[in-house]
Amino acid sequence: MTVSLVGAGPGDPGLLTLRGAELLATADVVIYDRLIAHELLERAPAGAELINVGKSPGASTPQSEINEQLIEHGRAGRRVVRLKGGDPFVFGRGGEEAEALRTAGVDFEVVPGVSSAFAAPAAAGIPVTHRGMATSVSVVTGHVGDQSAPGGVDWHSLGRAGGTLVILMGMSDRERIAAELIGSGRDADTPVAVVHWGTTRQQQVVRSTLGGLASIDLPAPSAIVVGPVAALDLGPKTSDSPAR
Amino acid sequence: MTVSLVGAGPGDPGLLTLRGAELLATADVVIYDRLIAHELLERAPAGAELINVGKSPGASTPQSEINEQLIEHGRAGRRVVRLKGGDPFVFGRGGEEAEALRTAGVDFEVVPGVSSAFAAPAAAGIPVTHRGMATSVSVVTGHVGDQSAPGGVDWHSLGRAGGTLVILMGMSDRERIAAELIGSGRDADTPVAVVHWGTTRQQQVVRSTLGGLASIDLPAPSAIVVGPVAALDLGPKTSDSPAR
Repeated sequence: MTVSLVGAGPGDPGLLTLRGAELLATADVVIYDRLIAHELLERAPAGAELINVGKSPGASTPQSEINEQLIEHGRAGRRVVRLKGGDPFVFGRGGEEAEALRTAGVDFEVVPGVSSAFAAPAAAGIPVTHRGMATSVSVVTGHVGDQSAPGGVDWHSLGRAGGTLVILMGMSDRERIAAELIGSGRDADTPVAVVHWGTTRQQQVVRSTLGGLASIDLPAPSAIVVGPVAALDLGPKTSDSPAR
Repeated sequence: MTVSLVGAGPGDPGLLTLRGAELLATADVVIYDRLIAHELLERAPAGAELINVGKSPGASTPQSEINEQLIEHGRAGRRVVRLKGGDPFVFGRGGEEAEALRTAGVDFEVVPGVSSAFAAPAAAGIPVTHRGMATSVSVVTGHVGDQSAPGGVDWHSLGRAGGTLVILMGMSDRERIAAELIGSGRDADTPVAVVHWGTTRQQQVVRSTLGGLASIDLPAPSAIVVGPVAALDLGPKTSDSPAR
């Protein structure tokens, strides 16, 4: 296998998979995103080439260029690890990278990772499903606009579906999201939790309600959890301390 | 930490987390479910007590009894690993176990795992989100009945939400589920994939449409994927072979 699209997990380096660690340990090239735990890079061999394609304001590598790098290193027969935050196939654009590799005829594999959509709430003591409270969980990104775009988000139906809603990358648009969900019929008193940097030592959790979401001021990366489970605190420690 | 609720991942033993492996390697007691990879039990120390509470027809341990076992071993100061398929807080009843431990005053931690809701589709070459195709993914169990139950599933709104839908434990009720989703307005031609034992050597994938779901005959455990992404096949191999 030449190129491996590897999920780095939600932030805590202990949440990398065994298979991901194995691939990192023999990588020739590691192409990584900004949000991955930097301790993970130390697992690569001493001579490995480490390429940061992290998307930070003003310094991100366009997706097409990332695809080209994967193809180029893959064609050269290098063992390439494409290390992506969370899971490569859950809001990770891993599907686009897989398509590009497939089209170019470069062998690849996909190694799933622990998704921050589920792990960030868990680190705040919130199970996304819970008996008598939530039997479904929907995960959505906040930055993609509404239903009018192809594949856009239908906030109204998601709001009405009633289960747990986890919104990734939604903090900059939180006021509109809260308004859409309340407009769909969700009670303004519905519990909400915002988990910043879930599973890491920088973790912060703020709890409120849908009506109070607009006043929560936490920067990215943050996961917004909406639903009755957001009021639970089943962690081992207080909710504003790190997971461990 | 006395009791650890550990996600064993979707089936492939390589998808256990590093932290999960670390805890298993020093466990005094491992309390495990039927669907976990049995190779994982070999990671426990030679003298460790291995307790199968697997839910198989006619031979499952009631949840209350599992909770009692966790509390009893935890109170005795043993290092207990509660090894659960997928992620403990995603349809794993881990929330109930955490609540019981909290109430009993027994220390615990939750170690997220790779959820089969995302990894089973990935192993079939299906990204649950994909640019221009799906910007949300909803995960639901098929065996919980409809909206009339507390926390029940609102198939109508989930159907209308338009993103990818992953249904776990739904095969026995697949005819009704397909009818509900078509009734909500989903096209009978919407692509569907059923992934049986995703990520394992027993993996089988059958592709069809919502209209054809009723005629797919695969036993549990199977994940049903509904939406345009279910027609994608971005795996390294043909879709009816194992992931690796």
